[in-house]
Amino acid sequence: MSPHEETTPLDPPDWEEFKALGRRIVDDMADYLAGIRDRPVWQPVPPDVQARLGTALPRTPTPVQDVYEEFRTTVMPYPRGNIHPRFWGWANGSGVPVAAYADLLASVVNCTLGSGENAAMMVEHQVLEWLKEAMRWPADGSGILTSGASMGQIIALAAARRAKSGTADIRGLGALADGRQFTVYGSTQTHHSVEKAVELLGIGGQYFRQTPVDAAFRIDTGALRRAIRADRDAGLHPLCLVGNAGTVNTGAVDPLDELLAIAREEDLWFHVDGAFGAFAQLLPTHRTLLAGMSEADSLVFDLHKWLYMPFDVSCVLVRRADALESTFSSSADYISSTDQGPAAYSLAFSDRGVEQSRRFRALKVWFALKTHGIESFAASIAGNIGQIAHLTKLADSSDRLEVVSRSDLNIVCFRYVRPGATADELNRLNQAVLTRLQVGGLAMPSHTVIDGKFVIRVANNNHRSELSDFDFLVEQVVAIGDELIAT
Amino acid sequence: MSPHEETTPLDPPDWEEFKALGRRIVDDMADYLAGIRDRPVWQPVPPDVQARLGTALPRTPTPVQDVYEEFRTTVMPYPRGNIHPRFWGWANGSGVPVAAYADLLASVVNCTLGSGENAAMMVEHQVLEWLKEAMRWPADGSGILTSGASMGQIIALAAARRAKSGTADIRGLGALADGRQFTVYGSTQTHHSVEKAVELLGIGGQYFRQTPVDAAFRIDTGALRRAIRADRDAGLHPLCLVGNAGTVNTGAVDPLDELLAIAREEDLWFHVDGAFGAFAQLLPTHRTLLAGMSEADSLVFDLHKWLYMPFDVSCVLVRRADALESTFSSSADYISSTDQGPAAYSLAFSDRGVEQSRRFRALKVWFALKTHGIESFAASIAGNIGQIAHLTKLADSSDRLEVVSRSDLNIVCFRYVRPGATADELNRLNQAVLTRLQVGGLAMPSHTVIDGKFVIRVANNNHRSELSDFDFLVEQVVAIGDELIAT
Ligand SMILES: Cc1ncc(COP(=O)(O)O)c(C=O)c1O
Ligand SMILES: Cc1ncc(COP(=O)(O)O)c(C=O)c1O
Repeated sequence: MSPHEETTPLDPPDWEEFKALGRRIVDDMADYLAGIRDRPVWQPVPPDVQARLGTALPRTPTPVQDVYEEFRTTVMPYPRGNIHPRFWGWANGSGVPVAAYADLLASVVNCTLGSGENAAMMVEHQVLEWLKEAMRWPADGSGILTSGASMGQIIALAAARRAKSGTADIRGLGALADGRQFTVYGSTQTHHSVEKAVELLGIGGQYFRQTPVDAAFRIDTGALRRAIRADRDAGLHPLCLVGNAGTVNTGAVDPLDELLAIAREEDLWFHVDGAFGAFAQLLPTHRTLLAGMSEADSLVFDLHKWLYMPFDVSCVLVRRADALESTFSSSADYISSTDQGPAAYSLAFSDRGVEQSRRFRALKVWFALKTHGIESFAASIAGNIGQIAHLTKLADSSDRLEVVSRSDLNIVCFRYVRPGATADELNRLNQAVLTRLQVGGLAMPSHTVIDGKFVIRVANNNHRSELSDFDFLVEQVVAIGDELIAT
Repeated sequence: MSPHEETTPLDPPDWEEFKALGRRIVDDMADYLAGIRDRPVWQPVPPDVQARLGTALPRTPTPVQDVYEEFRTTVMPYPRGNIHPRFWGWANGSGVPVAAYADLLASVVNCTLGSGENAAMMVEHQVLEWLKEAMRWPADGSGILTSGASMGQIIALAAARRAKSGTADIRGLGALADGRQFTVYGSTQTHHSVEKAVELLGIGGQYFRQTPVDAAFRIDTGALRRAIRADRDAGLHPLCLVGNAGTVNTGAVDPLDELLAIAREEDLWFHVDGAFGAFAQLLPTHRTLLAGMSEADSLVFDLHKWLYMPFDVSCVLVRRADALESTFSSSADYISSTDQGPAAYSLAFSDRGVEQSRRFRALKVWFALKTHGIESFAASIAGNIGQIAHLTKLADSSDRLEVVSRSDLNIVCFRYVRPGATADELNRLNQAVLTRLQVGGLAMPSHTVIDGKFVIRVANNNHRSELSDFDFLVEQVVAIGDELIAT
């Protein structure tokens, strides 16, 4: 038997058959996306499908066509919903189709981007350069792509601790030897991933100081200054100030330039969570709103949110070129570099964060940015903002609806109101309206609670939404609310 | 203008054209993989290609066919190399082709798997059940898929700290309030991601106690016991013991059952790093070697290593069902659950780790396990072990080669030797041999340093390798070494 006749059962036995399946998948997926508008946004997973997703570990092969068929019948009809034009829940993006092809390519060439010379490493490097440019970040800053803003907060806070520990060997000796109790500041509207990061680092979640907000959900800088002062007086060590460029609840943007000034005065690391909102930087109309952001020490933003990339891809940028390496670089004989060859390349992304193996998540960004150009993304982002302004206007002009929060970005929270109803009744009513919208597959906003009010929250990171989708939403909310009241 | 005529520039203007591109990609990728053996394993990225990967942020659209063409000419020819049958560097897996289709599907349906009812959540749940079964993990244990073992170590150590902090509110109050200086134990051969995790948590890298190893690179349990004792005597708080199921340098497996016993005696959390080696659990021949592993408190293993999945997908399993939630769960109004509808589902992976947005990385595992069956993977793993045994035998029987480390798993380290050469000369010679192999695109082992010896390290997580590839490697190493000596 010649070596080439040895069985390689994990490669397809027949590449032509494998191609045929791939072509079928490609055709089906294009049809699926082209027809998305005609399907429900979401539907419950029926019990028989749930049962089929609960079988034993497969021991022996199944024809791949059958596996794909199973995917088509059990998985495809019951997705989360965020690729649908009327999904506006949480902060999930919609997914640009060309990026999905790039994810296929990434999994075929299957590079891991820890270190080493290859084109994939250069693609991520290039994408980071582009993102710095798009965010008006200093060209000599640094960064890394990550799996999400949650990971980005961890990386940024670890870099903050390392930078602010000065000559103390915080990496080697840890928090106890350092002996300082750090504190981190942000508003009550800050995403919980910041608190999780503070916990993980061992700083303690209660030392994430949640400062009150004003009526527009922006951090109260007076209260912030007082909190920092009080902590210093109590012998604590203020470390980092987190500004929001778009809060998750309402899309509020903190006064970043003022926070920047406070951070500089107080010698704090200034971190901006721009998970979705940072992308408004692409719009000249919104640069004043975000003033200060590009002078932060670190910034996170999720390309899988408002750049519409498929999950997962996020970015953390840092101002100081060596901030990440000084926090995360390691040396070990088995990954040491050489003078020549694949291990001679000087860039090592594994030295800029926690991941050693790293998916080639840069490729989808490279592919999509080249295909569409950043201006198309900016147009879509501006469109989303316009749609939310439109929705806000519709809600403002309806006597059945109350706008509970408004923003310059892509989120509005509103509710159905009924004269004379108690607070509790309204909360129950709006929960019922939302459930009818979601379970009926009509539209998928999510909810939050603002000042005790259960509200319908529309967060628009969706490149497929059209103005008429928001007309439809308002009609439905009013109709369902009216109907529920009548019964 | 009807709403359907509004432009949606980030979706393809013509779905038939989009399909045509997809079919071309599918055909090209199959040909690329089918012909992989005929191409160099690795080649340097030429300066003109590097330049093309260094252009400015694209502002306007480019025809997607042109972008793909650029990918074909700048990225495809210069990958890391790990999909080639003669790549055995670091611990990179080779990538099963059907899994790449699944990654395309995952990016089209584009679910995020934080929480909520949908089929994707159920697929990850099912995959975790399968992995517990494959690893002979207790059925009532829990787990989560992550981006890599590095992330898994962080999750496991955070869970360890939470579990061992008892009633102390370590999440809320942090390391200083807890006041105990924790220590973590493992061998000198432990992957550096463990030390990075210890650093990140604020414990301090030097409190990761690196215990010496025996001649087979397994942890010296006597020295370990003494280290724990000494630390307790010094008032420190031993927290966690890390056992290796396959060290990165040499594939050594620590005496896990003995470590388990020590951990139980000393009341330590027992974590096993089985990044690649844990998969030997699929082979009845290797279960004795791994005895103790499935009784650990936590285990990490990388499906993108020895299960040949494309990056990224890794798993962390924990013994106690609530160990992850008690460490990572959060509540916030904007993600609270409801009684009915998509947010009523009780499972939330975002409560089991640090990621909130989470790629549908489970799909490729589901797809590949169904298609091939776990027995095919086991056969490939057994094949890799057999190939390394074959290579070890070849090296043993050559008077030009010295085997520096051997293992029961998939790694062997060896070097070219020359009677009378000094240690330094041999190191330089072997570095030169390796560079010739790599830069010539002939084969791609990596290197490490063992007892001061620069060695050629062959780590075989490659489902495409054949026995003859190792014959070729030995021939080449000997021929290159001979040639270098002669000149
Ligand atoms: C403002 C904000 N920050 C952080 C996050 C967390 O991002 P990720 O889900 O990518 O971890 C989110 C997610 O919704 C967010 O809206
Ligand atoms: C034994 C061991 N542990 C941990 C890791 C880190 O895994 P990952 O690259 O998936 O983060 C590796 C990677 O090579 C490894 O070999």
